[in-house]
Amino acid sequence: MIDLRSDTVTRPSAGMLAAMTSAPLGDDVYGEDPTINRLEETVAGLLGHEAGLFTVTGSLANMLGVRALVSPGAEILCEASAHIARAELGAHAAVSGVTTRTWSAPAGQIDLEQIRALIAPDLGSYFVSTAAVSVENTHNFGGGAIQHGYDALADELDALGLPLHLDGARLWNASVASGVPVAAYASRATAASVCLSKGLGAPVGSVLVGSTELIREARIWRKRLGGGWRQAGVLAAAGLYALEHNVQRLAEDHSNARLIADVLADAAPGSVKPDQVETNIVVADLAATGKTVAQVVEAARAAGVLVGGVGHTQLRVVTHLDASTVDCRTAAETLARILQ
Amino acid sequence: MIDLRSDTVTRPSAGMLAAMTSAPLGDDVYGEDPTINRLEETVAGLLGHEAGLFTVTGSLANMLGVRALVSPGAEILCEASAHIARAELGAHAAVSGVTTRTWSAPAGQIDLEQIRALIAPDLGSYFVSTAAVSVENTHNFGGGAIQHGYDALADELDALGLPLHLDGARLWNASVASGVPVAAYASRATAASVCLSKGLGAPVGSVLVGSTELIREARIWRKRLGGGWRQAGVLAAAGLYALEHNVQRLAEDHSNARLIADVLADAAPGSVKPDQVETNIVVADLAATGKTVAQVVEAARAAGVLVGGVGHTQLRVVTHLDASTVDCRTAAETLARILQ
Amino acid sequence: MIDLRSDTVTRPSAGMLAAMTSAPLGDDVYGEDPTINRLEETVAGLLGHEAGLFTVTGSLANMLGVRALVSPGAEILCEASAHIARAELGAHAAVSGVTTRTWSAPAGQIDLEQIRALIAPDLGSYFVSTAAVSVENTHNFGGGAIQHGYDALADELDALGLPLHLDGARLWNASVASGVPVAAYASRATAASVCLSKGLGAPVGSVLVGSTELIREARIWRKRLGGGWRQAGVLAAAGLYALEHNVQRLAEDHSNARLIADVLADAAPGSVKPDQVETNIVVADLAATGKTVAQVVEAARAAGVLVGGVGHTQLRVVTHLDASTVDCRTAAETLARILQ
Amino acid sequence: MIDLRSDTVTRPSAGMLAAMTSAPLGDDVYGEDPTINRLEETVAGLLGHEAGLFTVTGSLANMLGVRALVSPGAEILCEASAHIARAELGAHAAVSGVTTRTWSAPAGQIDLEQIRALIAPDLGSYFVSTAAVSVENTHNFGGGAIQHGYDALADELDALGLPLHLDGARLWNASVASGVPVAAYASRATAASVCLSKGLGAPVGSVLVGSTELIREARIWRKRLGGGWRQAGVLAAAGLYALEHNVQRLAEDHSNARLIADVLADAAPGSVKPDQVETNIVVADLAATGKTVAQVVEAARAAGVLVGGVGHTQLRVVTHLDASTVDCRTAAETLARILQ
Repeated sequence: MIDLRSDTVTRPSAGMLAAMTSAPLGDDVYGEDPTINRLEETVAGLLGHEAGLFTVTGSLANMLGVRALVSPGAEILCEASAHIARAELGAHAAVSGVTTRTWSAPAGQIDLEQIRALIAPDLGSYFVSTAAVSVENTHNFGGGAIQHGYDALADELDALGLPLHLDGARLWNASVASGVPVAAYASRATAASVCLSKGLGAPVGSVLVGSTELIREARIWRKRLGGGWRQAGVLAAAGLYALEHNVQRLAEDHSNARLIADVLADAAPGSVKPDQVETNIVVADLAATGKTVAQVVEAARAAGVLVGGVGHTQLRVVTHLDASTVDCRTAAETLARILQ
Repeated sequence: MIDLRSDTVTRPSAGMLAAMTSAPLGDDVYGEDPTINRLEETVAGLLGHEAGLFTVTGSLANMLGVRALVSPGAEILCEASAHIARAELGAHAAVSGVTTRTWSAPAGQIDLEQIRALIAPDLGSYFVSTAAVSVENTHNFGGGAIQHGYDALADELDALGLPLHLDGARLWNASVASGVPVAAYASRATAASVCLSKGLGAPVGSVLVGSTELIREARIWRKRLGGGWRQAGVLAAAGLYALEHNVQRLAEDHSNARLIADVLADAAPGSVKPDQVETNIVVADLAATGKTVAQVVEAARAAGVLVGGVGHTQLRVVTHLDASTVDCRTAAETLARILQ
Repeated sequence: MIDLRSDTVTRPSAGMLAAMTSAPLGDDVYGEDPTINRLEETVAGLLGHEAGLFTVTGSLANMLGVRALVSPGAEILCEASAHIARAELGAHAAVSGVTTRTWSAPAGQIDLEQIRALIAPDLGSYFVSTAAVSVENTHNFGGGAIQHGYDALADELDALGLPLHLDGARLWNASVASGVPVAAYASRATAASVCLSKGLGAPVGSVLVGSTELIREARIWRKRLGGGWRQAGVLAAAGLYALEHNVQRLAEDHSNARLIADVLADAAPGSVKPDQVETNIVVADLAATGKTVAQVVEAARAAGVLVGGVGHTQLRVVTHLDASTVDCRTAAETLARILQ
Repeated sequence: MIDLRSDTVTRPSAGMLAAMTSAPLGDDVYGEDPTINRLEETVAGLLGHEAGLFTVTGSLANMLGVRALVSPGAEILCEASAHIARAELGAHAAVSGVTTRTWSAPAGQIDLEQIRALIAPDLGSYFVSTAAVSVENTHNFGGGAIQHGYDALADELDALGLPLHLDGARLWNASVASGVPVAAYASRATAASVCLSKGLGAPVGSVLVGSTELIREARIWRKRLGGGWRQAGVLAAAGLYALEHNVQRLAEDHSNARLIADVLADAAPGSVKPDQVETNIVVADLAATGKTVAQVVEAARAAGVLVGGVGHTQLRVVTHLDASTVDCRTAAETLARILQ
């Protein structure tokens, strides 16, 4: 079975497992796990921030980061298909009391004009105040697109004194594809999350970065939300291993995704624009094929290929370090047969 | 001083005060205030619903209505400048855990294409589900605009089995201006709020309508939110008086608003389109006048006219039953002098 | 029908109604209702605090006061049958995220030893911190009992730097019965609520008092919770009238309650201790009578007397300004006949 | 350094690490991690429940369990020093909107008379309803005490139709010490949590058990709270290993704790009653020793022994599988020297 549903499905390699079993451990609730401490310092350093916090998921890292920037009753702006708006089960409202307004743009892109129109100055005690803007880079449901207006937005928010939240679940994909260092992205944000268990291949874990004070508060809320783990250095070791071994190879995932896009574009013209596949995600629109997402997903499964759906008519195919170029070519050809 | 900041500023007339002091009263927490009961039944009947609940504000009526339709962690869709998104201090998230995504349209209008793109089918346990769509009619920050796509949206939502929430704070304005009965609007919604203390001139109070079961739940949450009042029949009497005496006269407010719009359009060409002033709110864009909202509001105040601002560059002028045609003409001419 | 279910059932007198209809009004969301402003200043002055906020219910005043003292995730201590723990539908947790631990004492009294054992010093970021202690005076479900250890508790909390919350829904009853000025009670608390619609006889309304800053924040949350009303000066006028005319007469309610207690103690020995009836509430325990609360309530209703129940076996009878001494004697004799 | 601060400080053994690296893994968000699935089924079976859910902490397992039993605004009853009341940062209120009332008893014991007095029948829509009772067994801050009235409480709640929540963080300690099978405890509860990372020695993880439906809902909320991990089978494998190898040996921890208690009772008479040390926790009261908790903790640290404090005057010493009998004797003698 070739599993291209998500880059979260990877399993730790032998080298990663060896790193996990040899890592020094301690009780992280007391701040005493040396491997976690090293991971938090390493990631904070890489991203140009003072401090880091190791969390069980990217959703938790985002929840802690957004909460730190936005008080209950204030709002964060984001694109309408952002992960924080669509795929975290409404936690920012349900748990943190944060409200959201959204803009909509192709590939989940920053649209400065729309964002300017939404930003609401603090108008006293009658209106909701815009407290932050969130950007997902790369944008998952936007087909792994890199945010091309990132610096312009960061400049605009700096001028307004508004914080930027970066959902960097796939920030290393953006960096490897664009050549922009991750710190050049993340240091523009007041709080940023990155994920170790997607393209990087660790089994579990994300890191939130920010100021020492922001992370101190986030650590307390991590515990309140039930995320204060103990000897999780065993997982942090996997993250450290991933940072050392699995970053540059993301370029392979990107070329594999382009390969798939090329095959699908041939098989179902118009379903995908290969030159817009910038990283490791291919989103193909099936509207014109006469087939439903469920039909294609099921036929592919029967043929040994797992893929997923996003929204009404879109198929999502994600490449990762457990899927070789040969696997990806096989999967693409399987899908092509189904779509033709 | 001519006060055109809002239609909430009206004071009860002598007739209304007489109605208030002669109303039979009781303890509404026990459901025993006969005047409140009569108001709730009357409004539910007028709006084509089974039951009603008298609330201290429209914000509370909206909070109870939205909560009834949307569980914590699920989402409601609304226009980006809707009252529930902008002017209720984020209560739907902060208190009810409800998240929001928004579309943006001129005059706060329904945009069926954008709404269709936002509606998210229930995709299992990973994604936020769209649980309702909310429409404000007339739309306050949209310049008192009537929702012209209302029935088309209601049809679409019926087909999808999705409930419609109607923020009808100024529903009687919409009805008087369009000739559409309030029941024709409200009966399309699963929950609707209407306000007695805006154009209708009661001092305090709104009514939420819906099914008997929805109102039963809302009554419990009204108490939990500290809104379970006692002998408020004194206020309900004002509401009943308003419904009998102050509905048809809203047409005067509408023609007064048009009068003001005409004068402002002459004084500051392009600031307002008089034929888009459908009800009792005039929103004038000062961007091209070289004057800020704060400057104009202050100069008007000095000249005996109170008006307000919305957003960065917009002046808001609202007509109501305590401002005569002469008052409105005087105010318009004062503003014209300031803008020229 | 003689209604002794609660002192909330009173209806405004002719004098009160006249005060209501002659009061100057304005829009309280803008802070412009002169009667509300006068009420807030008057009550703050009477209670020895900087500022006041007029709220639709005592539950709302308590919710705003507790929220101001206790952050989400921190705790307030109170007696197990306190109104905030039992009769506000869990709002402090459900809406404000405040957790509670409780002591239990006869008549809902302060028990300093138990409270000392509960108070938890701030032990870093692993434990819940005690942020305030709340006391209800008089204590409703404690049979209208005056808190006799009030000053000792206030001294203890001062020494610890912990704020005291006073639920003073019936503080005037405590004051009239004990001879202690309301300010001597309320000024010991950091936030205090008092009710105008119970013994004082206004139709609707309570007041929260505290520092200017506390009230400023409470005003914003009052609006967020849907409690920001408009021309509610009509109700504030009733409150001002009540403060001028209905305070000293509470002594009559107290002697009427004692009268009822005497009759019930004769009819059902042991059910009530008359010398413990300090104010306007009589709680009689029916356990030894062989009759259930529901039976007695129903038989009394059939005989023209309305009373209520608290908990499993307790009947509650409440005197107030709409029940004369003759009414109270009639009610007592009716209950006596049923119990014998 | 001998670390007796908590049984959470253990590190995985070589055998446990080997089990972790050889476990089959998958993506648990998709329900596809075979080792997690095996752990959940195993624990559910051991505890006599239909289904289980693997969570990152006991706090999260408790949060999900309590939420499943108690709606926002309803209450759970627990002992005043229970972990859910004291050591989970108020999450049940702050995140789930659940309110609490408490009884107080020596060693955190069930006190049926107090509990009966607190249980509030559902009295309509004005009062908080008691929705569940929670018991911690063994009771951490109660000195690792076994709940001796457990079955009597369970019988009482069955009769009332009220669910029991079991915080079984150290349920295996209770079972090994009392000889009562864990299923005999857990099957009486509607929802129960057990911890794998305390006495059992796994690095991370707890399991919530309940009905299939309860666990289905809990799984969604686990994801909403950011606890939906991916290839966490690596940790589940440690849990399975712990269940096979580390349960019966808890008896050693218990005898080591008794050894420490004996030494401390000799050194500081009255500080601890050895025959009340039933499991692996020794709580010694320093009130009579003239030394503060901070002094003793610091002096012990300087002498190579780590212990902790609970509350104002209590020292807590916890035995576990990384502290041998020799270690425990050394630690006890060190503490004795400091206390004498």
